[in-house]
Amino acid sequence: MEKQVTADSTGVLDAAELALIDRYWRAANYLSVGQIYLLDNPLLREPLQAEHIKPRLLGHWGTTPGLNFIYAHLNRIIRNRDLDIIYVCGPGHGGPGMVANTYLEGTYSEIYPDISENVDGMRKLFRQFSFPGGIPSHAAPETPGSIHEGGELGYALVHAYGAVFDNPDLIAACVVGDGEAETGPLAASWHSNKFLNPARDGAVLPILHLNGYKIANPTLLGRASDEDLRHLFIGYGYEPFFVEGSEPHKMHQAMAATFEQTFDRIRAIQHEARHGAPGNFCPRWPMIVFRSPKGWTGPKEVDGKRVEGFWRAHQVPVSNCREDAGHRNILEDWMQSYDPEDLFDIDGRLKDDLRALAPTGQRRMGANPHANGGLLRQELLMPAIDDYAVTVEERGRTMAQSTEILGHYLRDTLTFNADNANFRIFGPDETESNRLGSVFEVTDRVWMEEIEPYDVGLARDGRVMEVLSEHLCQGWLEGYLLTGRHGLFSCYEAFIHIIDSMFNQHAKWLKVSRELPWRKPVSSLNYLLTSHVWRQDHNGFSHQDPGFVDLVANKKADTVRIYLPPDANTLLWIGDHCLKTYDRINVIVAGKQPELQWLSMDEAARHCEAGISIWDWAGNEQSTVEPDVVMACAGDVPTMETLAAVDLLRQNIPELSIRVVNVVDLMALQSKEHHPHGLTDEAFDELFTPDRPVIFAYHGYPYLIHRLTYRRTNHNNIHVRGFIEEGTTTTPFDMTVLNELDRYHLAIEAIERVPGLKEKAADAIKLFRGKLEAHHHYVRQYGEDMPEINNWKWPYDGNGTRIA
Amino acid sequence: MEKQVTADSTGVLDAAELALIDRYWRAANYLSVGQIYLLDNPLLREPLQAEHIKPRLLGHWGTTPGLNFIYAHLNRIIRNRDLDIIYVCGPGHGGPGMVANTYLEGTYSEIYPDISENVDGMRKLFRQFSFPGGIPSHAAPETPGSIHEGGELGYALVHAYGAVFDNPDLIAACVVGDGEAETGPLAASWHSNKFLNPARDGAVLPILHLNGYKIANPTLLGRASDEDLRHLFIGYGYEPFFVEGSEPHKMHQAMAATFEQTFDRIRAIQHEARHGAPGNFCPRWPMIVFRSPKGWTGPKEVDGKRVEGFWRAHQVPVSNCREDAGHRNILEDWMQSYDPEDLFDIDGRLKDDLRALAPTGQRRMGANPHANGGLLRQELLMPAIDDYAVTVEERGRTMAQSTEILGHYLRDTLTFNADNANFRIFGPDETESNRLGSVFEVTDRVWMEEIEPYDVGLARDGRVMEVLSEHLCQGWLEGYLLTGRHGLFSCYEAFIHIIDSMFNQHAKWLKVSRELPWRKPVSSLNYLLTSHVWRQDHNGFSHQDPGFVDLVANKKADTVRIYLPPDANTLLWIGDHCLKTYDRINVIVAGKQPELQWLSMDEAARHCEAGISIWDWAGNEQSTVEPDVVMACAGDVPTMETLAAVDLLRQNIPELSIRVVNVVDLMALQSKEHHPHGLTDEAFDELFTPDRPVIFAYHGYPYLIHRLTYRRTNHNNIHVRGFIEEGTTTTPFDMTVLNELDRYHLAIEAIERVPGLKEKAADAIKLFRGKLEAHHHYVRQYGEDMPEINNWKWPYDGNGTRIA
Repeated sequence: MEKQVTADSTGVLDAAELALIDRYWRAANYLSVGQIYLLDNPLLREPLQAEHIKPRLLGHWGTTPGLNFIYAHLNRIIRNRDLDIIYVCGPGHGGPGMVANTYLEGTYSEIYPDISENVDGMRKLFRQFSFPGGIPSHAAPETPGSIHEGGELGYALVHAYGAVFDNPDLIAACVVGDGEAETGPLAASWHSNKFLNPARDGAVLPILHLNGYKIANPTLLGRASDEDLRHLFIGYGYEPFFVEGSEPHKMHQAMAATFEQTFDRIRAIQHEARHGAPGNFCPRWPMIVFRSPKGWTGPKEVDGKRVEGFWRAHQVPVSNCREDAGHRNILEDWMQSYDPEDLFDIDGRLKDDLRALAPTGQRRMGANPHANGGLLRQELLMPAIDDYAVTVEERGRTMAQSTEILGHYLRDTLTFNADNANFRIFGPDETESNRLGSVFEVTDRVWMEEIEPYDVGLARDGRVMEVLSEHLCQGWLEGYLLTGRHGLFSCYEAFIHIIDSMFNQHAKWLKVSRELPWRKPVSSLNYLLTSHVWRQDHNGFSHQDPGFVDLVANKKADTVRIYLPPDANTLLWIGDHCLKTYDRINVIVAGKQPELQWLSMDEAARHCEAGISIWDWAGNEQSTVEPDVVMACAGDVPTMETLAAVDLLRQNIPELSIRVVNVVDLMALQSKEHHPHGLTDEAFDELFTPDRPVIFAYHGYPYLIHRLTYRRTNHNNIHVRGFIEEGTTTTPFDMTVLNELDRYHLAIEAIERVPGLKEKAADAIKLFRGKLEAHHHYVRQYGEDMPEINNWKWPYDGNGTRIA
Repeated sequence: MEKQVTADSTGVLDAAELALIDRYWRAANYLSVGQIYLLDNPLLREPLQAEHIKPRLLGHWGTTPGLNFIYAHLNRIIRNRDLDIIYVCGPGHGGPGMVANTYLEGTYSEIYPDISENVDGMRKLFRQFSFPGGIPSHAAPETPGSIHEGGELGYALVHAYGAVFDNPDLIAACVVGDGEAETGPLAASWHSNKFLNPARDGAVLPILHLNGYKIANPTLLGRASDEDLRHLFIGYGYEPFFVEGSEPHKMHQAMAATFEQTFDRIRAIQHEARHGAPGNFCPRWPMIVFRSPKGWTGPKEVDGKRVEGFWRAHQVPVSNCREDAGHRNILEDWMQSYDPEDLFDIDGRLKDDLRALAPTGQRRMGANPHANGGLLRQELLMPAIDDYAVTVEERGRTMAQSTEILGHYLRDTLTFNADNANFRIFGPDETESNRLGSVFEVTDRVWMEEIEPYDVGLARDGRVMEVLSEHLCQGWLEGYLLTGRHGLFSCYEAFIHIIDSMFNQHAKWLKVSRELPWRKPVSSLNYLLTSHVWRQDHNGFSHQDPGFVDLVANKKADTVRIYLPPDANTLLWIGDHCLKTYDRINVIVAGKQPELQWLSMDEAARHCEAGISIWDWAGNEQSTVEPDVVMACAGDVPTMETLAAVDLLRQNIPELSIRVVNVVDLMALQSKEHHPHGLTDEAFDELFTPDRPVIFAYHGYPYLIHRLTYRRTNHNNIHVRGFIEEGTTTTPFDMTVLNELDRYHLAIEAIERVPGLKEKAADAIKLFRGKLEAHHHYVRQYGEDMPEINNWKWPYDGNGTRIA
């Protein structure tokens, strides 16, 4: 850590400014330590006693002084240049620093008046940190100015880029810790520069904050040479600047000088892009490598062991301060080294000369409205779905590709909102493959690297973002939504598990945000999962996993929705609905292959509003008595197989009374008290009967249906078929057979579950088993499904008469 | 693509060798195209007819010729230098290439004798590809020589590194596609070089295969300049070599020359490390940037649209060849361009002069035993767990840290197997934090960057691998296991979701491998999840998610196990058991904090073998009648809270007859027909009764217990409490209260569920509610749990008499 500064580092700050900024930094450091340690005696105006110290010391000091240092210097550059900057704090455990700084600049007390700017407020500020009923130890929704949860590492930089897309005046200063820099998502995030258009988007200033250590280990980049780091970041397409050292005054000068240079660079790039000749280039944005000691300004040694500049400073550098008077002395000396009386006035308020260092109003990073995106959110302008509806001339005989139809609607949504520049579509190179290609009639994929003459669908100002990284798609979208915009993430169903843990964190963020009145609602995060498990023609067993929704169903009911539209019109209705919601995560699972169409737009609307309904036209029950069996289905392929099974049953056992129930909103299966969309028990019993066998064909792992319905009257009679982890590269129908979800297995089970029918319908069972046998041979012989499977359509007319 | 070659590229191959290797490559390309297209007429000895072509064309041509090119040149270097090389094929969709090459070298027919080396075998080879009942379209367990599933991209390089750790003579040639290179896990994987010890480990030769396009887009690195790529890979710590172009003969010379150079470099680094002075450095390993056209040697144009060298070559470059005679002609011309008669003899067998180009025996990459690790696997040598057992002097009053105890056992396991060098521990910087620190008495963390004098626990030959990337930990371990070794991954419970999708793929790999007799069993992938949801003292809501096991439970029953040992001796037994198993994924969830100890080693062994059992000593039932209530528990914290609830009930309602059931093996809850560990219904009813209320305190999301037990007789009376997404940074007991899993909620629910008891025990309910109220105030006042909570121990002696 003896190396010093690259930039011309003297003279940027005059002596007075240097002294002031250093005092401001000390104030933030003081408040950070106070939060970790103190219950009382916040300004140390009496000797530190055991009872002033928290019983449980929980917090992370190591990264905090560096975060505070950066915050102070960002304040300076904001004031000097009137910049619009948000602070994305990758080392989220540096929560005390973010809280300290927003308190110093006044935003904290504005949002939480009880934490006032005086001694009493400071006491409460300290006490609430990592304290029951208080605030978590890391940057979180509770932290003003944050759009970034400081839990799982890896997503700071994607959030920062997501925030500045379509925000030309915004700069996201993004601190990446050297621990975080080891993660995969962060390692890929550096490439986000290739998707940032300097003419229409804002800028990200990445600050790689190397303090050299994780919990108990050095870090890879912390131990790398400057030479290797320089290569690495040039290779990633950046212009790296280095600020390195431990002596505060030199470091202040270096940081101030480097910020002047880097913000000059950003201005120059933007000016060139916005006012120069239209360029065909991906500019080399600046980034900063900032090396400072871990636990900087904290205790150098404790009990003879190295602390400052080492991993022992990671969390609580000196422990057990209640019981150990020696440790308590170290703590007191440490806190006094910041000289609180020089920083806070007699009332405990930051002294006026220091207050003047913070920006004012919405320029304060804790008060920047972009970090509370609901404040800025404009409603999405949406076309009328009726204009895109498929006309179902003959129910169950008309074919359409559902996602293609949705693509038309999305195309026009893009057009409607082009001027507002607040809607983007994200996906890993699959927009076209997922049949949403008509969006390319009105926009392109954004691409800032070279564009060749023969390229198609690439442009500098495209509104579709494609990169072969689900992490980047998800993180960009999160950043985009949290700053008040709208979006859709379309993904192959199997690969959405890649971002399971990102989904988790976003769901938790929304759950907590909804409990904070000052956080305004943001648009929902919408997933369209397609190329789903039942239509993996090009792929094999490794691509087959419909379990993402199981994870989703674990989250707070208020936050999540799962939709399985069976055809194009239902998909349109659901897609439109999801884009209008806020503070939720909506998961839509829908196939992209040509499929039979069941419902007119009006019917689709009624069905989707209900979430579940009986398809009268498909069953043959008499309204006066309960049916013999309920054939239920959720998902496009299960719906088709169910209807084909119903046809088999109606043909072969005409006396069997069948009800067909389709589920489009999975959450409606749950009890009313578990989910706002849940049906009452009475309504559920009306649909599924209290006692008849229910054969339920479901898109995913069958267990979820049991889990959602286990409290229902008729649960013991619900027999679910779904994906049971069988499959490979094969035909679509063979996939259903391998998993026993096909029409024949469904029909056989229906017969077997209706009391007394099995014997009477032995011929039908034999026939269906024969068909399965025939399928098996045919598909292995010819490599495609039997014509009677491929050509099957719903063979009934509007009067229920069999026409085929 | 006009740029050519960096290396001295002429003269490495003489004219004869050049002609031969080019013909070999053409043979592989021919067989690749044949697999994608042909049902019959494999050698095109008659004019190509519609019926010779598959009805569904499924496969990926784009990456395949490049993969074949590399394969041919690796064959050459293996033969010339007698090298031990495996081929890790990142662009897994290039399955046709991997199959073609293993067929050419003879391994395919050895493993699958039906696919013989003649015309008939070639017909079958073609037909089976992406065909029902055949093989998947991508590299998979079915592919000889593969340890890498070609489904979800991102893990080729970590698998390669995992394979060569502790395999000093092995070289993994790892092809990374430029699509894959955009993923986060791959972007971080390059840093694996900092964990590779050239003295004891083998080498990885990464080959970044840039063909410039994904499905419908250029790629980031494909469009990057050589200059930026050079910086990037120097920055990652490599020495990059470039092979670029499209003219086959020049490219053969360039590749041959570059392989000579890079394998020389590898040899030199290894020689220096093994025979030179002990160095303190991280060597700069070579890597190759290989730019070749997408769909190289395929159709240049189809229907007037650019195909070769563009993304249209990604999958099937010319479609609809059955119906469209023009397309069929393109296909025929394309296949004939390889001149099959020049490659295969009259019987359809590869000509002898070409056969001589492949290595022989186990040097063939398809026959390398490292890629079928079970062949090489040595049993782990394991200490006797009794030597580590906690002596439980007083049941429920002795304290221990369970993971610390397991650490002692792991320490000696490391020692026992030190000579075999086949056991490593993986984790994201949390081995010490997870209380496994005693392993550092006998080994260190492996670290190849600089080591400072004040560092602790770092060494070049450490057997603990720590990096702040769960992806790298998981991927390295998978590679290590699949090549026949053993390992353990310890991770914070919340963060294991990061690798959900990697877990999925490994589970699928194991499921398929188990169906292939020639794939020998490999050691199980063992997870130790600790710092779990109930003990997140330092962390907040973002770290709280116990849902990984829900994902695990979706997988094939044969493959997965979930264990929740409640104390140290059960953890020891389970840990030991898991390390002895093979072809499975074992998940162990266990806390790291000091906790009460319940079972002696003998009792623990009996309990774990059973999976579930009644804890007689905890309940107070009479053996002759059914208890009034069953208090069930799974997980360490739920177990403690359950026993505390039982104590509350026994004290306050002595007449209540209580049974305590503890579940350590979650899969035992399932029906016997669903899981090999499942209890029979009779055994389940014996434990849980057919009709009494069961209050089940469970570690994770409650739904899983319902899902596992929904077919059981008494299911409707099972009332599960678990994590319901409530929490923040707070005390451990407060976490249980927020989620209503604490002793008081459990005791109240027991009273309410026993018919008729609620009224009689109104005072007890009032008392317990008062305690919750008192807790609420105390914890917010003092920031710690009430002494009666913190100090609670099991207050009964061996005779069941209350002693405290």
